Amino acid sequence: VNQPREHSSIVVLSEDDLLHLARDALQAEGVPEADAISAARILVLADLFGVSTHGVDRIPAYSNRLRIGGINATPSIDIKRVSPSLIRIDGDNGLGPVIGLEALRAAMDAATETGVAMAFVRGSNHFGPIMPYAYLACERGFASVIASNATTTIAPSGGRESRLGNNPLGMGVPNPGGDPIILDMAMSVVARAKIRLAAQKGEAIPATWATDRDGRATTDPNAALSGFLSPIGGYKGYGLALMVDLFAGLLSDAAYLTHVSSWADAPEAPQNLGHFFLVIDTKRLGSTEWLHAAMSDFRSILVETPATDPDQPVRVPGETEMKGLHERKRNGIGIPRELHAVLVDLADRRS
Amino acid sequence: VNQPREHSSIVVLSEDDLLHLARDALQAEGVPEADAISAARILVLADLFGVSTHGVDRIPAYSNRLRIGGINATPSIDIKRVSPSLIRIDGDNGLGPVIGLEALRAAMDAATETGVAMAFVRGSNHFGPIMPYAYLACERGFASVIASNATTTIAPSGGRESRLGNNPLGMGVPNPGGDPIILDMAMSVVARAKIRLAAQKGEAIPATWATDRDGRATTDPNAALSGFLSPIGGYKGYGLALMVDLFAGLLSDAAYLTHVSSWADAPEAPQNLGHFFLVIDTKRLGSTEWLHAAMSDFRSILVETPATDPDQPVRVPGETEMKGLHERKRNGIGIPRELHAVLVDLADRRS
Repeated sequence: VNQPREHSSIVVLSEDDLLHLARDALQAEGVPEADAISAARILVLADLFGVSTHGVDRIPAYSNRLRIGGINATPSIDIKRVSPSLIRIDGDNGLGPVIGLEALRAAMDAATETGVAMAFVRGSNHFGPIMPYAYLACERGFASVIASNATTTIAPSGGRESRLGNNPLGMGVPNPGGDPIILDMAMSVVARAKIRLAAQKGEAIPATWATDRDGRATTDPNAALSGFLSPIGGYKGYGLALMVDLFAGLLSDAAYLTHVSSWADAPEAPQNLGHFFLVIDTKRLGSTEWLHAAMSDFRSILVETPATDPDQPVRVPGETEMKGLHERKRNGIGIPRELHAVLVDLADRRS
Repeated sequence: VNQPREHSSIVVLSEDDLLHLARDALQAEGVPEADAISAARILVLADLFGVSTHGVDRIPAYSNRLRIGGINATPSIDIKRVSPSLIRIDGDNGLGPVIGLEALRAAMDAATETGVAMAFVRGSNHFGPIMPYAYLACERGFASVIASNATTTIAPSGGRESRLGNNPLGMGVPNPGGDPIILDMAMSVVARAKIRLAAQKGEAIPATWATDRDGRATTDPNAALSGFLSPIGGYKGYGLALMVDLFAGLLSDAAYLTHVSSWADAPEAPQNLGHFFLVIDTKRLGSTEWLHAAMSDFRSILVETPATDPDQPVRVPGETEMKGLHERKRNGIGIPRELHAVLVDLADRRS
């Protein structure tokens, strides 16, 4: 297992090997070992789930921001439990996944006492995908609602200027002895990458995906690329993205809306992103046997729905990712050879 | 003010007069006065917001279910604070708005001590729209996330049988000294009524609104009416509706998915609907001055976005409803003459 298997342009590593490589690479820019282990845990979980755009792939960009002072490698993360079930955290501009994992742990510790607890986080950065946090919460028996604000990419309904982020929202419910159900979604109908692909192929896009720069629905992918991503359900998705920013950004006393600076445009500036972590101790609601039976029944009712296309059975959120996690824990995680080389290079540079 | 003003087929009543009429009408079927006042409070707030489909308009149907034993007029609502910030409520099949208001109050009382609290409710019925609860929470300085499950009307993504409800989700954040921002949305792109209207007019509908009974997107409103409402953003809205049911239904130990019985098809059967009420005491997060300044700034950034159509400025969720509330508190609430007559009739029948 210590020798990475190599298929064409993919290098396959075991979970442990990728965790160690990610940890070592993050230490190159002065991140303390314990923090590097935390961040590696979140990013490698993303890769285990197959969410490779939000996994160790992000380490080179994180390293760049650490190097130019955009992210603080040695933050003093301030955790205040302002009341029994309410925690406020200032991340001191540290790595997002380090702050995120601290926040999740603080919320779970409080909820162990009070049943329900919530952590509001300011002074943070991109914290990876939400699924790893929700998964770790589920592993310990906590249901969760987790969200973050983000750099602006969406125009308000009826507007023609980008004023809010594609703010991700995630929710998870544990299934003791089985796979949890976890939803992790952003508020746009599709990701920008899908529009870029249509432009490359010269194909029209559905009018529901994006607007042109005047805020009008368009089927032209090039007009869409100079316009705005459309939120799901029009004003409903706009409303959801906005509410996530109120809870994750404004109530956390973090930056919100246009106050959030762009990672891409100003990598040297602190973003002051905001997150929240709500956790519920399901053991206070019933036995693990009860929860397992109910979760199994719930899932069955959905996946046994007669399918429109018999080859495409109905699934529940997180099902594909959980299958991927089991498979990759057994067979290893494939990452592009170039990325592997960059990570090895970073790891070699640590002092 | 005691003499209702009459315009054509609309009767205009003051807020107080409509509250009294709704209270009296609910007492006709044996609802105790205090409970009738609670339910009237929620329903009349719906009418103040202009959400007339979920206001006093529902009283005749509530009365019918009370009469045939589908709803319990004199429930013993069981409220257990199982841990400092976690409350479990069994509504004993009482009126939804009565149970909902009890749950909101219990959650706010707990959160006054702990900062954050959550009530999980089982044994309930249709509890009206969410906006009134979120508004009452905002009035007392609480941000909230509130949701309910509902009778099945949506097919899972890729399925062709209705297995989950158009589960409403609401969120509110107070603005001390100004209007709160409140989102109250269901998970379908449009309400069924909009498709019915298109069918009456013989017009095609957008392919994003609904599917036919085989789960395929359709522009034919008649095919849509024998099919399923489409959730916003396809599998994203399916995922959101499902997560709401996990939190509001399953975790509350209420009915969920196809276990929820239909109000329309079986009005005599208890529905065992589930809700949850999460409240956050914003006073633990900062001063009212801070919150007012931040909320005003947040709103300004959005409503000052250059508009696609200059006659349609950008708005924030709940803005139209809050304007309606201020206007109707001054000038009265208009309800259809027929409905007024039915309510007066009911009120006259109370013992």
